[in-house]
Amino acid sequence: MSAAPTAYEPTDRTVPTRGRPKARYDRETVHSILDQAYVCHLGFVRDGAPVVLPTLFGRVGETLYVHGSTGSRPLLAAGKADPGLPVCLTVTHVDGLVLARSAFHHSVNYRSVVVHGIAYQVTDEDECRMALDALVDHVVPGRSADSRPANAKELAATAVIRLDLTEVSAKVRTGGPNDDAEDLGLPFWSGVVPVSPVYGTPVPAADLTPGLAAPDYLAAL
Amino acid sequence: MSAAPTAYEPTDRTVPTRGRPKARYDRETVHSILDQAYVCHLGFVRDGAPVVLPTLFGRVGETLYVHGSTGSRPLLAAGKADPGLPVCLTVTHVDGLVLARSAFHHSVNYRSVVVHGIAYQVTDEDECRMALDALVDHVVPGRSADSRPANAKELAATAVIRLDLTEVSAKVRTGGPNDDAEDLGLPFWSGVVPVSPVYGTPVPAADLTPGLAAPDYLAAL
Repeated sequence: MSAAPTAYEPTDRTVPTRGRPKARYDRETVHSILDQAYVCHLGFVRDGAPVVLPTLFGRVGETLYVHGSTGSRPLLAAGKADPGLPVCLTVTHVDGLVLARSAFHHSVNYRSVVVHGIAYQVTDEDECRMALDALVDHVVPGRSADSRPANAKELAATAVIRLDLTEVSAKVRTGGPNDDAEDLGLPFWSGVVPVSPVYGTPVPAADLTPGLAAPDYLAAL
Repeated sequence: MSAAPTAYEPTDRTVPTRGRPKARYDRETVHSILDQAYVCHLGFVRDGAPVVLPTLFGRVGETLYVHGSTGSRPLLAAGKADPGLPVCLTVTHVDGLVLARSAFHHSVNYRSVVVHGIAYQVTDEDECRMALDALVDHVVPGRSADSRPANAKELAATAVIRLDLTEVSAKVRTGGPNDDAEDLGLPFWSGVVPVSPVYGTPVPAADLTPGLAAPDYLAAL
């Protein structure tokens, strides 16, 4: 048994037509970008037109899970589609605003992952439960063990789809602006404004049992 | 001449199958969500499969603009498509992590906008220039007036597509967790962890002309 390769194999769809130096295929970079995002953008085709919806997701190894009501459109479509629903799942972080001397070279520093593939509805109950734990732990690591697990009624109301990480690429832009040499003397400030998410003080639910302290795993965020 | 209606007209595609109370159609909410985002997720169909790419955008009134290299795939497709390229453009902000007592009721507080429509390539040079200014000012308000405008060569290398805001909806989730009454006594902390973007200290370009101070409009971010 050989170890999994450390990188995804590039395909026609995952080699960009532009910005190739920014492309990354190693699993470590891809997993890290995915795991830091709360929301992905899930694209699918309905009646011949594209639909892109934000949704929570979870990762277990080389599989992503998305869940929703059994009545939600993409989940229904994945369940009905045979042999599955073609999707494109994309995650993006903005890390900085890149101000160049020229309007043309303005940009943002970012990290993104694009996954192409076929989404299948999960029918195995154990896999469903594992996926739902992964979805909760994706929001707050360690949280699934510190909440009430889904009961039979909730499981029946929830559809889960899986998307394997096979056709995958990341793109990463870092660093300063790339001004043209002839623009360097222009009197415009040039550089990067870093952007990052911060967490505020946890706000207890209005009906929280008095005396119940915020758990330690929130401090680790 | 009558004033523009204050809200977008709901359509089959913009009325959600679930979470209807979260839906918003007023222009003020939609514009505010769009204007606070740096990146949108642009979905289109290629060879029958969905593609979702992160990209910068700008807004001028009721029109969104997306730009890219004349060699980029969606831009090429919009240029070749007759009468335009069906797209779905989505923007999402995550405002908080919602921890419920039950795994099932975990969620995030978010604001999202989904725009359905046909993207057309902009061929008028004045509209192209206005769109490029809007794209730069979308990253940093006021910046387009404080940078070198695109020259003829840069304009020729840039494709711009426009998407009118006609079939549009927003979704907004705010507030605490919605735990079931029978779960309120469970010994799990419940509440919201706020998340918001913060800006770091601007990092000057390595080749910045000495003595050029960071502009005031960066302090306004």
